[in-house]
Amino acid sequence: MQIRRFFVPELPDTADAVITLPERESLHALRVLRLEAGDRMTLLDGCGGVAEAVLLQPESRHSREARCQITSARRLPPPAPLTLLVAPPRGKAFDLVLKAAAELCFTAIQPLLCQYGTARPEGTSEAWRQTLVAAVKQSANPWMPELREPMPFAAALTQFGGENGLFGASPAAEATARQRHDGRGISALWVGPEGGFAPTEEQAMLDCGLLPVTLGNAVLRVETAVPALAGYIYAVRNSI
Amino acid sequence: MQIRRFFVPELPDTADAVITLPERESLHALRVLRLEAGDRMTLLDGCGGVAEAVLLQPESRHSREARCQITSARRLPPPAPLTLLVAPPRGKAFDLVLKAAAELCFTAIQPLLCQYGTARPEGTSEAWRQTLVAAVKQSANPWMPELREPMPFAAALTQFGGENGLFGASPAAEATARQRHDGRGISALWVGPEGGFAPTEEQAMLDCGLLPVTLGNAVLRVETAVPALAGYIYAVRNSI
Repeated sequence: MQIRRFFVPELPDTADAVITLPERESLHALRVLRLEAGDRMTLLDGCGGVAEAVLLQPESRHSREARCQITSARRLPPPAPLTLLVAPPRGKAFDLVLKAAAELCFTAIQPLLCQYGTARPEGTSEAWRQTLVAAVKQSANPWMPELREPMPFAAALTQFGGENGLFGASPAAEATARQRHDGRGISALWVGPEGGFAPTEEQAMLDCGLLPVTLGNAVLRVETAVPALAGYIYAVRNSI
Repeated sequence: MQIRRFFVPELPDTADAVITLPERESLHALRVLRLEAGDRMTLLDGCGGVAEAVLLQPESRHSREARCQITSARRLPPPAPLTLLVAPPRGKAFDLVLKAAAELCFTAIQPLLCQYGTARPEGTSEAWRQTLVAAVKQSANPWMPELREPMPFAAALTQFGGENGLFGASPAAEATARQRHDGRGISALWVGPEGGFAPTEEQAMLDCGLLPVTLGNAVLRVETAVPALAGYIYAVRNSI
């Protein structure tokens, strides 16, 4: 089925408001999906705003602007805070990570520069933001994760190491720290680069009280580790 | 770092044995990685066999066969049984699902033909098997998941519905069946197509006693739902 969701920053909360979709979204509605006056659509602003709307007659035959009238609007509460701190993998794989993060309702994404990772991530923040916009539209998540600028691991640990967090760990690190952990308050997930966190990085996280978790004995790609550990967190947060 | 793992069915369990890599693996070792006599490598047979080996001098200068001598061999026990029953998504996305399944140590993969899914999956069993071979090499998983032929949903439920299973559910199905569940014995994960399981399919799974799980409020792609629910199962199996 055709997905008719559009991203409109600062969506009004009032029904009957008439708005114009941003240029990129107008193009998608009129030229790609070929929507017509009277067609229904859903608008998202990434900040909890969700509106149903109907496309209006264009102002002229060649208009590239999609105007629509909101028929109902609501603002949904934010999900529980959950920050993803992740070393971007090479190539297009980070796009898969961003999509999964949007679908799994992470509230913030902090790219990490790690010892075994790329010194400078491929891709730009603007390209990553566009991937996130597409992902919240596809997944109908009313809250877009906040995307932060890449930061060295040590600085990130200073800033976020105090939060109740969990990290994708080597089997060795997990074995050294088998402890009871109240998982319900977890608000941060740390995932390292392809080669894993360096031993000194793992030790620094253990020293901060972060919980090491290893899923099975095989090597996980970053784009597998992120959703798998998010599902793990979902289970422990809900004390299943 | 260059990964030097090769897939060799029916690996001998004895050190000192001399074997020839299969044609495709020989090509990869000699032409792609350009390994030379004396180079070390790891061999996997997908059935728990793992061997360290060293490349021998080729029999002739133009030989396309990689011969190597096993220096040590062991056979690892299989992981706990976990079958993935999944409706293949369109296009290349099923490759991502297969890779994740190999990394997360599923023991079998049963493609499902569901009401809202594709009537005939794209891709062939042989192509899927090659994807799995590549994934077990990349992830160093000594056990390759058994790949079964696609089967209609109803037939699969007759065959596997008696196993302690969990399925990716719509929020509605999850709400109707909030129950205590001993997750430790879970041995099957059911994931539907892009459009989700049909209501009749969900009801049939509930009638079999399968546990419905919804992760958050957003729509998950199949390739996100599989690793996320696998991580969820990992947590409940280990009674975190």
